[in-house]
Amino acid sequence: MKIRLFQFNPIVGDLVENTNRMIEAVKNAKSDGISMILFPELAVCGYPPMDLLERPSFVETSLEMNRRLALAADGISVIWGSISKNVDKPGRPLYNSLYMAENGRITTVAHKTLLPTYDVFDEFRYFEPAHEFVVKEWNGIKLGFSICEDLWYNDNEYHRYTVNPAQELKSLGADWLVNISASPFSKYKPNQRLEMLLRHCDEEQLPILYVNQVGANTEIIFDGDSMILNADGRIVERSELFTENYIDAAWNSDKKKFESVTQSKPKPFCDEERQFKALVLGLKDYIKKSGISEKVILGLSGGIDSALTATIAVEALGKENVIGVTMPSHYSSSGSVDDSVSLAEKLGITIHKLPIKSIYDSISHVLEPLFKGTAFNVAEENIQSRSRGILLMSLSNKFGYLVLNTGNKSEMAVGYCTLYGDMAGGISVLSDLYKIEVFAMSKWLNESYFKREVIPWNTITKPPSAELRPDQKDSDSLPEYEILDGILKAYIEEKATVDSILSLGYDSATVKRVVRLVDLNEYKRRQAPPGLRISSKAFGIGRRLPIVQKWTHVQLNSLILND
Amino acid sequence: MKIRLFQFNPIVGDLVENTNRMIEAVKNAKSDGISMILFPELAVCGYPPMDLLERPSFVETSLEMNRRLALAADGISVIWGSISKNVDKPGRPLYNSLYMAENGRITTVAHKTLLPTYDVFDEFRYFEPAHEFVVKEWNGIKLGFSICEDLWYNDNEYHRYTVNPAQELKSLGADWLVNISASPFSKYKPNQRLEMLLRHCDEEQLPILYVNQVGANTEIIFDGDSMILNADGRIVERSELFTENYIDAAWNSDKKKFESVTQSKPKPFCDEERQFKALVLGLKDYIKKSGISEKVILGLSGGIDSALTATIAVEALGKENVIGVTMPSHYSSSGSVDDSVSLAEKLGITIHKLPIKSIYDSISHVLEPLFKGTAFNVAEENIQSRSRGILLMSLSNKFGYLVLNTGNKSEMAVGYCTLYGDMAGGISVLSDLYKIEVFAMSKWLNESYFKREVIPWNTITKPPSAELRPDQKDSDSLPEYEILDGILKAYIEEKATVDSILSLGYDSATVKRVVRLVDLNEYKRRQAPPGLRISSKAFGIGRRLPIVQKWTHVQLNSLILND
Repeated sequence: MKIRLFQFNPIVGDLVENTNRMIEAVKNAKSDGISMILFPELAVCGYPPMDLLERPSFVETSLEMNRRLALAADGISVIWGSISKNVDKPGRPLYNSLYMAENGRITTVAHKTLLPTYDVFDEFRYFEPAHEFVVKEWNGIKLGFSICEDLWYNDNEYHRYTVNPAQELKSLGADWLVNISASPFSKYKPNQRLEMLLRHCDEEQLPILYVNQVGANTEIIFDGDSMILNADGRIVERSELFTENYIDAAWNSDKKKFESVTQSKPKPFCDEERQFKALVLGLKDYIKKSGISEKVILGLSGGIDSALTATIAVEALGKENVIGVTMPSHYSSSGSVDDSVSLAEKLGITIHKLPIKSIYDSISHVLEPLFKGTAFNVAEENIQSRSRGILLMSLSNKFGYLVLNTGNKSEMAVGYCTLYGDMAGGISVLSDLYKIEVFAMSKWLNESYFKREVIPWNTITKPPSAELRPDQKDSDSLPEYEILDGILKAYIEEKATVDSILSLGYDSATVKRVVRLVDLNEYKRRQAPPGLRISSKAFGIGRRLPIVQKWTHVQLNSLILND
Repeated sequence: MKIRLFQFNPIVGDLVENTNRMIEAVKNAKSDGISMILFPELAVCGYPPMDLLERPSFVETSLEMNRRLALAADGISVIWGSISKNVDKPGRPLYNSLYMAENGRITTVAHKTLLPTYDVFDEFRYFEPAHEFVVKEWNGIKLGFSICEDLWYNDNEYHRYTVNPAQELKSLGADWLVNISASPFSKYKPNQRLEMLLRHCDEEQLPILYVNQVGANTEIIFDGDSMILNADGRIVERSELFTENYIDAAWNSDKKKFESVTQSKPKPFCDEERQFKALVLGLKDYIKKSGISEKVILGLSGGIDSALTATIAVEALGKENVIGVTMPSHYSSSGSVDDSVSLAEKLGITIHKLPIKSIYDSISHVLEPLFKGTAFNVAEENIQSRSRGILLMSLSNKFGYLVLNTGNKSEMAVGYCTLYGDMAGGISVLSDLYKIEVFAMSKWLNESYFKREVIPWNTITKPPSAELRPDQKDSDSLPEYEILDGILKAYIEEKATVDSILSLGYDSATVKRVVRLVDLNEYKRRQAPPGLRISSKAFGIGRRLPIVQKWTHVQLNSLILND
């Protein structure tokens, strides 16, 4: 009896096409002699469908797709995730459900119990939790059904759940734990996921079938990492990360364990490679699934952020689809243009040179009557950044290229970036990577991945500069990145208080200034492009703060002390 | 025994100052001979605090503020909303609570039962629902406590609740229904709210004390509309909308009813006036509470959107704090500049004239090598719009003015607007008003509110035009606004399917095109400024859609038909 876990990459909302692709996979599985094929959580609509779930025709069409999938379960059993309607109970109008079909009809619908409603998750906005646990007999085996968070019941920092679905299923006599997931990638997620599954092997002493979505939908990236474990915790099969694929295992009913069929041997990735592959997939799927353009364009400043963004874009889309533009101003060093040209050569991409001096001068001339007598300040700096934004957007509008935003998480955090200038773009590639991580990934790419100088070493080693005024360095206005990023990581990912950040040994004035800058710059981030999420707390849909608010750690600590 | 409802306008996160202002109000009430004063839901932290609730020092400081408020309850009873910690039960870490203090200490903490998690609300993200209902005896009267949504149990389209808290409180012997709220304004909300309260009078036959937050926090506007009703449904006191104030009533224990003390007589508002006052308050609070600038700047195009925005700004901030800029291009009619100058004169505001022709020419010159041989298209249109955006942002950066965005809901819906161009700004004033509502409000202002021509009649009567190419009219690319806005309202507010919109009698191709434009332009709206919310479904934090998604009514309807 062979089981297949199909690590599926759906497009959100593409109900008919997702379903057709799943039916195709069912047919192939059947001809491969598979007895049961499993697809991830919400495979029919893709995850996360967000407020599309509020549209009645979306719901009705999803239900129609479930019926079609059931018809395909002919000589093979099929399990997949989709929505179902809550018709008989009070509460929300929908369930997040696991469907099982046999002999052309749906034989089981089991609902998700634990509904994540934190960070990027909003499941209580749409779904009613399950009111009962479902164990279903299939070929003499009792399948215990769960969906994603149901297995993570005690692993998140936000919610202490009252019930452990795996234990409930065990107590109902389950022989296997079956889990369909849409569990997003973040830096440490694959290890956390394996630990979580091994803990269940330990606690429930049952084999686990775990099938996860792969691919990216807008900002959220799914790594997949589907796996089959035996009750003793041995991994029988484990999917390659970041690709649509399947793993098969055969059930040995005498030994009560699975045996490997596909002999999957996923490549081991180091931290940098995992993040790099995630960003490549995130960008590739954004472009492919949105279908707006095959080509992307980005400004090359000679700095490391744009260099790494271009490198990721070439890996994701091919060099023929990436166009660089160098846009020197009065304050650009000749080295910046040279480094950009050198990068473009090494990547094999087209580069255009569009100097912005004349644009800057014409804008300054128009503003002269009002600016007369004022000192050069951030206004003049931003005119340069915004002139570049206009040029990139003009090329986007004229030729249909998508503009890539090249900002990193450190500058997004403290607002060291210009709205409508270097913050322009359709998708932000590095906005969840701190500057020190940008450096680390760039070095790793040269040294270990490409094993040659793709990102010019000069770009990696020179001091970072925005080059918006003479001899400017990032370190003129910001702490050194080692310090800045340490404080930011504690404040953003770990939600540390000022006091606990200080206890790490940072300078008090620096910590208070950084924390205050993060809070004050919420207004900029609200207008930022969506950014690929690869940490446990990215800016964007998973971090929701009011723009107008007077609370900061700093203000309050001092108010309370002085009070 | 006199009761005071204090319709409070807190600043989100300004815990210490909000508390100090509440304590001041408690002292004043005491010297006015008041026995009990009530403040709204989450009065200590302001609503909505969003992810500030995840910060441990924010939580601890809120609890400290509760203790301070309790100390002020000296010779007067005080009821207010604040957070409390869930220490003993599984679930979320916090409750949304009602506090009551007497004789210097907290005597009751009652939690919210029904937690709205739809539209702009995310309460399940932070709060655990109440596990019991609380009736508290006070001077021989049994107070039945509830918080906001608890009284709206069967009024929203998203969630059929299992329990009706008002009936539970009645069955526990409550003599009064006490409700503290943070219930946002939307166009029909005051009437809906009164109907809801009257239904409770009818069902529970109890007097109601209803105190609501007033003021705006980022995009959400609270109208207040606090009131005191007797069991027979008679309104004893009702607060003036859109201002911080209080209402007092005296309890006649013989007659078992409240009697008016403050003799409040709120002005009756028509639909336009209510929306106008809401926007004025929304803008005023955004500016005042963010504390970034006293002055605002906006582009005056000669069109109706910028004219109405400027008028609202003058009403909110005073004419000395509003600066207009007219920025004619090659395609601007002389009438546009004249209308802008005429508007500025009538409003008494400063206007600067900054022609963008030379900027447009310098940008075009830089792009010439790449644009050579291509036809004039949206790229050239957007260069004009973005040149204006740069000028406004430059003045903002130089002088600290906040840029007002002037876009309306119709153009935001279909993407008839330019990212980083006319979509620039710190706050969007009209983004929840359809174009026909912009016209109606402008006419009403001239005819009924100002009773003189403030917005030039020529601006109101001429055909709308973006003036980005020769002789352009909005109607060249969009359906007439009567039709467009009818379709948009059905699709966005009423979540109607294409079929049901068609049944309203609109042309099929037009409906499909409009619906598709709304779906496709999600990427633009994701980068839009926050906009003041005055409808039941505004763009922004209460409408969450994936950018990359393939589902549209149109696609699916046709796929299913062809399938």
